[in-house]
Amino acid sequence: MNKLERIEQSLNPRSIAIIGASSSPERVGYNILESIVKGGFKGEIFPVNPQYKEILGLKVYASIREIKKPVDLAVIVLNQFASVEMLKECGEVGVKGAVVIAGGYKEMGPDGKALQDQLAAAAKAHGMVLIGPNTLGLINTRANLNATFYPDEFKKSAISFISQSGAYGCSFIYKLWDHGIGINKWIGVGNQAVLGVPDILEYYEHDETTKLIGIFFEGTDDIQGFCDAAKRIVPKKPIIVVKAGKSELAKYSALTHTGTDAGSDEGWQEIFKQTGVLGASSANDMAIACKTLSIAPLPRGENLFILTHTAGPSIMATEVAMAMGCSMPPLAEKTKDRIAQIIGNVPVILKNPVDVAAGGFAHDKFGHLADVILQDEATGLLLACYQYHTIWGCPSQAIIEAKQKNGKPIIMCLISTYEAFLKEKDLLQENGVPLFQTPEEAATAAVYLINYYRFKSRSAEMI
Amino acid sequence: MNKLERIEQSLNPRSIAIIGASSSPERVGYNILESIVKGGFKGEIFPVNPQYKEILGLKVYASIREIKKPVDLAVIVLNQFASVEMLKECGEVGVKGAVVIAGGYKEMGPDGKALQDQLAAAAKAHGMVLIGPNTLGLINTRANLNATFYPDEFKKSAISFISQSGAYGCSFIYKLWDHGIGINKWIGVGNQAVLGVPDILEYYEHDETTKLIGIFFEGTDDIQGFCDAAKRIVPKKPIIVVKAGKSELAKYSALTHTGTDAGSDEGWQEIFKQTGVLGASSANDMAIACKTLSIAPLPRGENLFILTHTAGPSIMATEVAMAMGCSMPPLAEKTKDRIAQIIGNVPVILKNPVDVAAGGFAHDKFGHLADVILQDEATGLLLACYQYHTIWGCPSQAIIEAKQKNGKPIIMCLISTYEAFLKEKDLLQENGVPLFQTPEEAATAAVYLINYYRFKSRSAEMI
Repeated sequence: MNKLERIEQSLNPRSIAIIGASSSPERVGYNILESIVKGGFKGEIFPVNPQYKEILGLKVYASIREIKKPVDLAVIVLNQFASVEMLKECGEVGVKGAVVIAGGYKEMGPDGKALQDQLAAAAKAHGMVLIGPNTLGLINTRANLNATFYPDEFKKSAISFISQSGAYGCSFIYKLWDHGIGINKWIGVGNQAVLGVPDILEYYEHDETTKLIGIFFEGTDDIQGFCDAAKRIVPKKPIIVVKAGKSELAKYSALTHTGTDAGSDEGWQEIFKQTGVLGASSANDMAIACKTLSIAPLPRGENLFILTHTAGPSIMATEVAMAMGCSMPPLAEKTKDRIAQIIGNVPVILKNPVDVAAGGFAHDKFGHLADVILQDEATGLLLACYQYHTIWGCPSQAIIEAKQKNGKPIIMCLISTYEAFLKEKDLLQENGVPLFQTPEEAATAAVYLINYYRFKSRSAEMI
Repeated sequence: MNKLERIEQSLNPRSIAIIGASSSPERVGYNILESIVKGGFKGEIFPVNPQYKEILGLKVYASIREIKKPVDLAVIVLNQFASVEMLKECGEVGVKGAVVIAGGYKEMGPDGKALQDQLAAAAKAHGMVLIGPNTLGLINTRANLNATFYPDEFKKSAISFISQSGAYGCSFIYKLWDHGIGINKWIGVGNQAVLGVPDILEYYEHDETTKLIGIFFEGTDDIQGFCDAAKRIVPKKPIIVVKAGKSELAKYSALTHTGTDAGSDEGWQEIFKQTGVLGASSANDMAIACKTLSIAPLPRGENLFILTHTAGPSIMATEVAMAMGCSMPPLAEKTKDRIAQIIGNVPVILKNPVDVAAGGFAHDKFGHLADVILQDEATGLLLACYQYHTIWGCPSQAIIEAKQKNGKPIIMCLISTYEAFLKEKDLLQENGVPLFQTPEEAATAAVYLINYYRFKSRSAEMI
């Protein structure tokens, strides 16, 4: 098996050993076992701990040697010293994939670095792929596998993550959940002793169920590997990155967190520009980007038009779009005429953003207006903004029809509470229209689509 | 009655006339009436429209003259031309407060400006206060009064708003609702024909139930009035502003929305600096600022400390805090020693942000650590970050105790889904601890507290 096949086997194991399994709910060795069991994993589960006979109804083995069946993935939940010895033992019995949860390695300074080197050497000596150390674990929703110590539920999607932080990586999942979107795979690379961000990127490149990749990282020793992988992947699958280490204090925190040199922010910005990797500056921005790029079609050009019946939010969406370098050309005369015909004598001045005031409350009119703007060849994509009303609701169906008819993206902003958002999200999002509650979020979504479109067009022009 | 008394009477009317009331649910004249009725308004309600006898069980009057009882507030839901005539008629029968909903005035150019001048002249001739035109209406939760065409529910709080946009002003209310916080008053000033932002500011200055003011505006003709009011108010009540008009396109949109000259962004930034008004750049930032400043105590100095059991989010919170000019000093040796005693031999390097890894999962330990950091005289406020776990939950009670004991603010970041946030928000927020789901939001909240503290300290130093 080559490296990618070993990663594939570790993410789709036929059997898992949890070494250091515990029966105490306040211990990580219990929590991971519980996550795997509750997550609905269909393969064999082997808890390992000489102190127990049974946990959660499962037979517990005294050692990895006692299992005497093939183990595809070993999750090691022991302290930093015992984990090194256990990894060797796993290698000796033929385990090819392991996760080491403990911290206390490179992030602690020279002694920890030496310990991590032993860990890496043991993995390499036995041809094992190792995830971590200093990690929350891994998730593969396609295999109903949650090997982290957070027993959460997951919806499925085509979005896969790489994270150097457990909790911050989880915040991507949680915010996406709030946005109504699931995940595909999630790998906490931690200190990257053996498998680093570039390795997982290469795996996701070839993983057919992954259509989009989100990354939180503090840094990598293999910048060239990252750039090479990103250059190959971005034209096929968008990569969105939150990169920590802008401020000196954050850089020092990264060093003491995962032993990572964060590098210069300017250098990373240049790498993003050259590779087409899209930057995100918050967990919510990451969720907005992932949701939008995974469900909306690509724009048919970079010109953004905004349609609304209520000017204020369209002005704030314009502010965000302009600040982020969008192109928002004026309305063509013929399109202005068509809009005027639809709205009648409502007193408004037509421009882009297109505010039709009371001329746009009715669903059929709002949908008709969206259709007319999308029909204009100048339009690359549309941001449609509507205020939710208990009587008028949201013109979801009309918006979906306009989008399907024209094959161009619509980003929907529904000024509303989260409760109202929940009522509309499934219909819209299942039909490829990302829904947001605020104009700033909707404009941010539009900017991600435009920036990915720009990069794709630019790379298509190159020979 | 002076101007402030007339505004007070309009917001706490004994009776309201809705002129242009309708029985068709798709008409604004129905929606406003419905909002007032469903909102639980206790005073008399007089729908006016010669075409109807009864709407929503209420007797309908053919004209304002036919009512023959005092009307404290007239809400005029007629077109832009008829509204001018009706305002005159209202003045003639002694109404002292009115709202004009229609657009079609100054924002339409010279003809509209002339019409608006007539409207303002009519109000002034009869000594009336006028809200609008081109507005969604007004809300006063203290009077159970919702005179807008959005029949939403409202929780009560001490936060009052002024907005030049209906929908965008509503997005403040909706996001605050999502954050678990209500509102006090909300006034849509629209084109500011008579009452402008400075007038409502002056009213809120003297309104005892208003402790904090949020504003969305595009601009004002009375910049001096705004500055004077802000200078007086900010040392007593924080003012948070989203100001539109940074980009040229947004400026033009403001002009065609409410006929407002947005002015230069640089000029407004200088005004904010001098008056201590706090800027916000999105609806969610406004909600974060309002929630935090309305429920947390003021810091005891400007130094921010961060406590976490999970480094990644603390690094991202640090990035935000550093980018916004916060002070995050190192841990004092004595505090470091006390922390080390609590967490034992967990392998971490202690610094600020304070990451105690597995040493901080247990609620009592996490609360004890928060207490120890707050006890340090260098600490102005604490941002505490915890990842929600179905077994471990959230250490809300321990955090509240540490906050109460030390009288310093704690901002809580609970890495979680919105569902988990909902479980914890009431306990924490009712005890003065604002809760957020992401580190970026929590850090933004901390920055608002610090910036308001800085301004208050600076003004206290001045003679």
